[in-house]
Amino acid sequence: MEPCFLTASEAATRIRDGKLTSEALIRSCIERIEARDPQVKAWLHLDKGKAIATARELDKRPAMGALHGLPFGVKDMIDTADMPTTYNSPVFQGYRPARDAACVGVARLSGAVILGKTDTVEFASAGRRAATRNPKNLAHTPGGSSSGSGAAVGDRQVQLAFGTQTGGSHIRPASFNGIYGLKPTWGSVSREGAKQYSNMLDTIGWYGRSVDDLALVASAFRLHDVGGIAAPELSTLKVAICRSPFWSKIEPAGEKAFDIACERLKQAGVTLVELTLPAPFDGMVEAQNTIMMGEGRASFLDAALEFGDRLHQDFHDRANNKLGITPEKMIAAYDLAADCRRAFEALYVDFDVVLTPAAPGEAPEGSYNTGNHIFNAMWTLLHVPCLGIPCTTGPKGLPVGVQIVAPRFDDARLLAMAAVLAPVIDLETPHYSADA
Amino acid sequence: MEPCFLTASEAATRIRDGKLTSEALIRSCIERIEARDPQVKAWLHLDKGKAIATARELDKRPAMGALHGLPFGVKDMIDTADMPTTYNSPVFQGYRPARDAACVGVARLSGAVILGKTDTVEFASAGRRAATRNPKNLAHTPGGSSSGSGAAVGDRQVQLAFGTQTGGSHIRPASFNGIYGLKPTWGSVSREGAKQYSNMLDTIGWYGRSVDDLALVASAFRLHDVGGIAAPELSTLKVAICRSPFWSKIEPAGEKAFDIACERLKQAGVTLVELTLPAPFDGMVEAQNTIMMGEGRASFLDAALEFGDRLHQDFHDRANNKLGITPEKMIAAYDLAADCRRAFEALYVDFDVVLTPAAPGEAPEGSYNTGNHIFNAMWTLLHVPCLGIPCTTGPKGLPVGVQIVAPRFDDARLLAMAAVLAPVIDLETPHYSADA
Repeated sequence: MEPCFLTASEAATRIRDGKLTSEALIRSCIERIEARDPQVKAWLHLDKGKAIATARELDKRPAMGALHGLPFGVKDMIDTADMPTTYNSPVFQGYRPARDAACVGVARLSGAVILGKTDTVEFASAGRRAATRNPKNLAHTPGGSSSGSGAAVGDRQVQLAFGTQTGGSHIRPASFNGIYGLKPTWGSVSREGAKQYSNMLDTIGWYGRSVDDLALVASAFRLHDVGGIAAPELSTLKVAICRSPFWSKIEPAGEKAFDIACERLKQAGVTLVELTLPAPFDGMVEAQNTIMMGEGRASFLDAALEFGDRLHQDFHDRANNKLGITPEKMIAAYDLAADCRRAFEALYVDFDVVLTPAAPGEAPEGSYNTGNHIFNAMWTLLHVPCLGIPCTTGPKGLPVGVQIVAPRFDDARLLAMAAVLAPVIDLETPHYSADA
Repeated sequence: MEPCFLTASEAATRIRDGKLTSEALIRSCIERIEARDPQVKAWLHLDKGKAIATARELDKRPAMGALHGLPFGVKDMIDTADMPTTYNSPVFQGYRPARDAACVGVARLSGAVILGKTDTVEFASAGRRAATRNPKNLAHTPGGSSSGSGAAVGDRQVQLAFGTQTGGSHIRPASFNGIYGLKPTWGSVSREGAKQYSNMLDTIGWYGRSVDDLALVASAFRLHDVGGIAAPELSTLKVAICRSPFWSKIEPAGEKAFDIACERLKQAGVTLVELTLPAPFDGMVEAQNTIMMGEGRASFLDAALEFGDRLHQDFHDRANNKLGITPEKMIAAYDLAADCRRAFEALYVDFDVVLTPAAPGEAPEGSYNTGNHIFNAMWTLLHVPCLGIPCTTGPKGLPVGVQIVAPRFDDARLLAMAAVLAPVIDLETPHYSADA
């Protein structure tokens, strides 16, 4: 089997055991990219020569860290010192930061090989969309704004990639591309060197092809207690089924996937309980939008002044507060979010983890509409860790996933639970095991 | 009179009226710097030639914005594309970012002339201290971490400068240097390109020599409603005297300055009411420390991995969570802060603005101890705008100020109130008016 089809953790084990070189793995990924990317268009920049040279160096030395020798894609709103960083914006073509973003630095210093930059919605916000197509059906979006990272991991072009989430930009593409994704607790990974949209929301996450892949990266970022929590017994787990206050936006494919996930858990002996969130949570999606747009004023002011007409109108609208967001609305949104954070965690008495939709359904057709973040925005604003798990495919043959959610800073426990829940939920996604 | 002694708003008026050129202003500041800075050591980098050339260009063209032709100092933990950015760290000597931080971009695009970079505590956090001395007495600290910006403005070397506050790094140096400072509402100025310490706390602010100076910069940053609120009648104002839960840490000089400020306001016909904050506020300084240190884990991880032994132990301690901050403590701190934000604003019924100490007393002796942030940390965590006003001098002849505080996003109202309160409070600071 071609190494590009291994999961990151399988590849890591083989590299550690001397059964695979980083160079062979990187070369295999590059071959896959060369074969597939002319259609998928996941990458804005690829540095094959540098990646192979780095892999060779890594093959000669002792392991640097958890990600030793593994390829990594970087969403192109995250700075890299040795590659252009365009934010997929016409006004930043050819821009080259002087320093890696903090998350890229941690990945490299943990042994990762940065393959290249993946396409994104402009500034991970609005304006220009990624050119990326959904690898499962090129007529559809891979989701956004982490479009290229989601598609590249989904298409087996790379094992790991960074995405970010301000609304639903990380977990929704995980669902649309049939892959695993972790959006860790807000604040637990440095955003330095990633384009800023919203202080209160922006969160860096990563994609992988298994729960182990997500845990591997989490260990590189030293998330609290990662590796220190044993996988629970499946039969002891209580999963809260949360259709969320936004269930009316679910599509048939999303509903079916959610029902399938519930049924599979039930069959596996997991206890399911229904979770209806209290009324204040109804306002959380509007609060997320208020905060995102309101904080966007400051985030795009310098670009609005600098680039004038060359900057997409979407960003002028934010800098000029076109929506007329008032201080009163901002304060109400911040305070509601704080109340709901506390209320959500207080609910964690009768269950261990929340299961909730990751997206309304399959990926929409076309490339402008990257999908609706209605099933993600609340969780982003709650600052809680969210883990996307593939589940099934919809009527158009496109993946539909679900997500599980834990209280703030319970990333390690979420990963431990995912390790036993994912094999039950994710039965249909083509899986290429090390022994295939 | 030398132009360097003008306030920024006085200089702006003269430039607008054709009575002063930007070049003459910049040259005057440079002369002052050359005479004074060998002792004060406020600047880590100064680009005289570039500043004069920029001023000349600005003198030839119509006004770019509110800051047209005015000199600006930039705390050296904020990126500048045309000057080194060292973060006052041995590991970043000679570092030169590819792009201006957002706040520097906004200043330049509003017509400011960036004179140079001012010294700071390493990464505006810990480790190495600034070499800067207090211009009023070289044996004392100018405060920190905005050491060089505070001293440069206080010493009449430059009219305006950026500082930042995570604990008390902006308002405390304002007090120690006898200058005005605004720490705006959290999130209302982009932090992109400023070294990150804490997501929930880091706030960019600016120093000036009058309330008008602060308002001028606030208008460049388009803070909500700036310029749209008329100055209130002094006799209609109700000021809440808040000694804060940390009053036991006040020093005699701080107590005297606070009493003087209260007495002056009373004499001027301002109504004073006592404000005792409810018990939960007692925990706010500890909560601020928990969040700062807890979020510092992620902020310094990449540097800890990259620089190893070359990085100051203080940052390894943060990355390694030496304090053993638990998720439970982080959550409790976040939730307490949210409660207190709401509770603080609910108090704003019986008064218009809060008057509270800006620092315990005069600037401490030496350069290692930059002073205690005990009278600042709570307000930073509350996300409210704080405005430092000079008041008097202590027994050692060093300045002692006070601060006024308003609810979140009430920056414009705070500036309008400061415009009438400051002339009453600030009687002793040597003031060089345009007509002097």
